[in-house]
Formats: sequence, C-alpha cells, structure tokens
Amino acid sequence: MEITAADCEKINANSLYQTMGIELKTASQGKARSSLNPCSDVCWPFSGQPHGGILFTLLDTTMAWAVYSELPHGANCTTIHLNIQYPVPARSAGFQCETQIQHRTGRLCFVRGQIVGSDRELVATGEAVFRIIQAAPIF
Amino acid sequence: MEITAADCEKINANSLYQTMGIELKTASQGKARSSLNPCSDVCWPFSGQPHGGILFTLLDTTMAWAVYSELPHGANCTTIHLNIQYPVPARSAGFQCETQIQHRTGRLCFVRGQIVGSDRELVATGEAVFRIIQAAPIF
Amino acid sequence: MEITAADCEKINANSLYQTMGIELKTASQGKARSSLNPCSDVCWPFSGQPHGGILFTLLDTTMAWAVYSELPHGANCTTIHLNIQYPVPARSAGFQCETQIQHRTGRLCFVRGQIVGSDRELVATGEAVFRIIQAAPIF
Amino acid sequence: MEITAADCEKINANSLYQTMGIELKTASQGKARSSLNPCSDVCWPFSGQPHGGILFTLLDTTMAWAVYSELPHGANCTTIHLNIQYPVPARSAGFQCETQIQHRTGRLCFVRGQIVGSDRELVATGEAVFRIIQAAPIF
Repeated sequence: MEITAADCEKINANSLYQTMGIELKTASQGKARSSLNPCSDVCWPFSGQPHGGILFTLLDTTMAWAVYSELPHGANCTTIHLNIQYPVPARSAGFQCETQIQHRTGRLCFVRGQIVGSDRELVATGEAVFRIIQAAPIF
Repeated sequence: MEITAADCEKINANSLYQTMGIELKTASQGKARSSLNPCSDVCWPFSGQPHGGILFTLLDTTMAWAVYSELPHGANCTTIHLNIQYPVPARSAGFQCETQIQHRTGRLCFVRGQIVGSDRELVATGEAVFRIIQAAPIF
Repeated sequence: MEITAADCEKINANSLYQTMGIELKTASQGKARSSLNPCSDVCWPFSGQPHGGILFTLLDTTMAWAVYSELPHGANCTTIHLNIQYPVPARSAGFQCETQIQHRTGRLCFVRGQIVGSDRELVATGEAVFRIIQAAPIF
Repeated sequence: MEITAADCEKINANSLYQTMGIELKTASQGKARSSLNPCSDVCWPFSGQPHGGILFTLLDTTMAWAVYSELPHGANCTTIHLNIQYPVPARSAGFQCETQIQHRTGRLCFVRGQIVGSDRELVATGEAVFRIIQAAPIF
C-alpha cells in the first residue's frame, strides 16, 4: 500500500512512537526510513543512550513499514523472528534506520535493516521474517 | 553479584521499566524472572497487546539480570546479539519472563529465555550473547 | 508421522548423513534425538573437530525430524531461518543432539535444540522456524 | 592477513571444501567471495539441491575469510553465533557467496553475507559475530 506523507504524520502520532521518540520518514516499494530522537525516559541504564529495546523497536517497526508498503489493501504483517546485532554502543543524539525487503512470497517476507548514529557509525543491524496476515487497517 | 529484594525495588523504579510496565522479580545464580503488565501507551498497533519491542525489552533485560547475577563487583554486560521469535500473538493481560545462562566464559555469556502469557502460552523465545564489560554500578 | 526404528535405519543410509557421520536415533511427538561421530573429512580446519557447519547440519536436520514427527502424511518442512550459537569449541569424540517443538501453527513450526559433547558440555544451541509444505515422502 | 591466489588454491584443497564443493575465490580488506558447486552426496533430501547445512558452511566459512583478511598474523576467528535465512529453495546448478565485515573491535567481528543462485535469486542471507583468537596458521 502506498504510504503518503499525510499517512506518516498520522502514524507518527501513535503512543508507542511518541513514548520512544520514533518517527517514520518514508515507506515505499519495499524500503522504509525512520529516525529516533530518544525520549529521556527510555534512555536507561546509560543516561543519554536509548536502551537496546528501543533500537529494536525502531528496527522492527521500520522493517514492518517496508513490508507494508508492498502489501495489498486489507493485509498487514507480524514479526515471526528478528535477529539484532549491536556492533557499538548507541552513543549519539539521534539515529537513522533504513530497511529493505530481501524477498517476498505469498505469506512470508524476508527483510534486512540497519541503524546508524549521527556520524554514520553502525549501532545495530538486523534481519527478520514477517508473516503476512489479513487485518483491519491500522491507520 | 547478589541482587536482593531491596535491589529489585530500586531497579524497578527506573524510567524504562516504569514506562513499559516491567518488573524484575528475582535474579540469582544465572537465572532471572520478570513480569510485564504493559502500560497502555506501549500497546500498539493492537490495543491491549504490547508491541514486540516491549517483549524484546522484557527478554533482553531479564537475560541481562541473569548474567549480572553471576558477575563480580565492578562488571556489567551489554548485548552483542539477540534472536527473538514470536510463536503466537501476545494477547494476555500480563506476561512472565524467565531467563537462564547457558554458558559463561571470561568475556562472553550465552543466554536463553522465554515469555509466557497468563495461561502459560508461549509468546516469545530468544537466545543471545552478552559481552562482559567493566562498568560503574547501575543501581 | 510416526518414525519407526526401521525408518531411522533407512534415513541414516542417506548420503549426507553418511558423509558427515550423523545418525537419527528417535523422532516422536515433536522431539528428536541424533548423534554425530564426525567423519575425518569434515573435521577442518581443526583436526578432530567437526566444522561448525556440520554441527549446524546435525541441529537443523534433527529439528526437522522433530517437526516431521508431528506432521500428517504428505507434508514435509523446510527451514525458514535458524540461529545457532557456539558456546565452546567442539572438542569431543562424539556429540548428541536433542530438539523440541516449541509451537506449531498450520503453516509454521517453532523449534529449539542443543548439542552436547561426550562429557555433556554444551557445544551448540539454536532456535529456528520451519515452514510446513506439501511434499512427496522422502524415505 | 593478505590471502593470495596461491593461498586460495591451498585453502581450496582442504577436505571439507572438497567434500562439499566449495571454492574460495577472493578474500581481501574485509570482503570475501566463494562459490559452491555442490557434490551430489551433499544434495539431500532433494536431489540436485544442496542441504541447507551446506549453504550454511559456505556462508560461515566465507564470512570467516572476510574476517581473516583483516586480522594480523597469528590471529584467527571462530563463530560465536550465525543467523541464516532461506528465502527460496536452493534450486540452481551453482551458487555464489559474498560476505562483508560490518564492524570489528579488538576481540569481536560483526559480519553479513548472502548467497545467490546462477540466475541471481537470493537463496540465503545471514549475519554473524566472530570471536578473534590467537591461533596457529591454518594454511
């Protein structure tokens, strides 16, 4: 499904994204891009550093938007599994996440993604498989 | 390091846990146990269901406490990688997480864990490797 | 499908197992057990130590037999993803592998497994998701 | 360490590679490239299709060569964990594998890789962490 700038605005108002500081930038043709400017409440145990679970949420949802951008109306996706790796500590004021579909079948979608800090250092990489399901629209 | 009931209380006051609804119950001799009673803000996109990133945070931190319980004073740990799998949707009022060290060397720790809902259905499993580091105490 | 001792014998004659030194012992009700007595040709680069890819093959196929033991006639399974971890070097004369289904839906199966050496040290753990497919019988 | 064409020739004579049909092409500056022309004995249970464990071995060793190409003399590496995903069945006469270091610290190396068939279809992707160790030269 096409995700317009207006859709992004609606999506970005959701309570999870607001709580963490995540913002979807674009999602189109199997690719998506998001940012994280972490809220201080989710920077723990190291002050100023988002917890690894926040980076995971950024990666997982940005992957899901990449999948979503390729789905027909009335379909959605859920994560079957996701492997995340953390090469370096997430010491940065902000983060960018990019994700790409690797392969899609009728019911499964294979996706990759990575997160970089403000000076382009690689703070997380991941790969995942999503299940494609029937579901009511979520935005 | 020993983690007492008083330590758990201090730990559970952290802003990340408060934001999500996570509570550490016990951590001792390489095993840890936590609960999640998800705050409504982190239940998205499906109302009443914590996002997969919240389950990940529950699993990752509970694994870290299992590791921490075996470390000498002045040491801490950070996640190198974590693979998480989601067998069924997380439709439950509350969740329990249990984690166990599989093997520890001087610098690495291999850990497993799982999360069940209130009727014991398995909503997530995972395995991870942690790096053991020198760090100031976090509680 | 039930896998009898006679089935195991037929299965164990396959060229992959013969090349590596793998033997299926039992597979029943979502659990399976195999052994590896590695052929010297697959012990590289460290003499006497099976390559990690041989441990992977042991784990992956033993997981598949656990899945297979629960499938109706005419079904089979293929690996979607598998995460393997290697806590310690595989220095042992022989290895035992055990696998267990964690959860099965109509089209997916979540599985865990581990491999131990002759003195019960944990040389590999893994978790995986299998896709259930229609296929001609393989033995 | 530099890996010359003459080194590749020596490496490719090892019994594991000969048993499976793997050939290292190049390894330099954190990248490596290999091919698989699978021996018929390791094509099971589907005739003409290498088992997933053979693709894993191709990926894992090609990742290791990428790491090795960046190590100082006297160092080597072993796999801590590897997550592999199989988007499509490996139906091809031959396969190409490419791997790239993502990040290297003093003791750990984060790597990604992928395997394509002869018409460039993606049959496997993976990511892994390697431990850097002191070891005698292996070729």
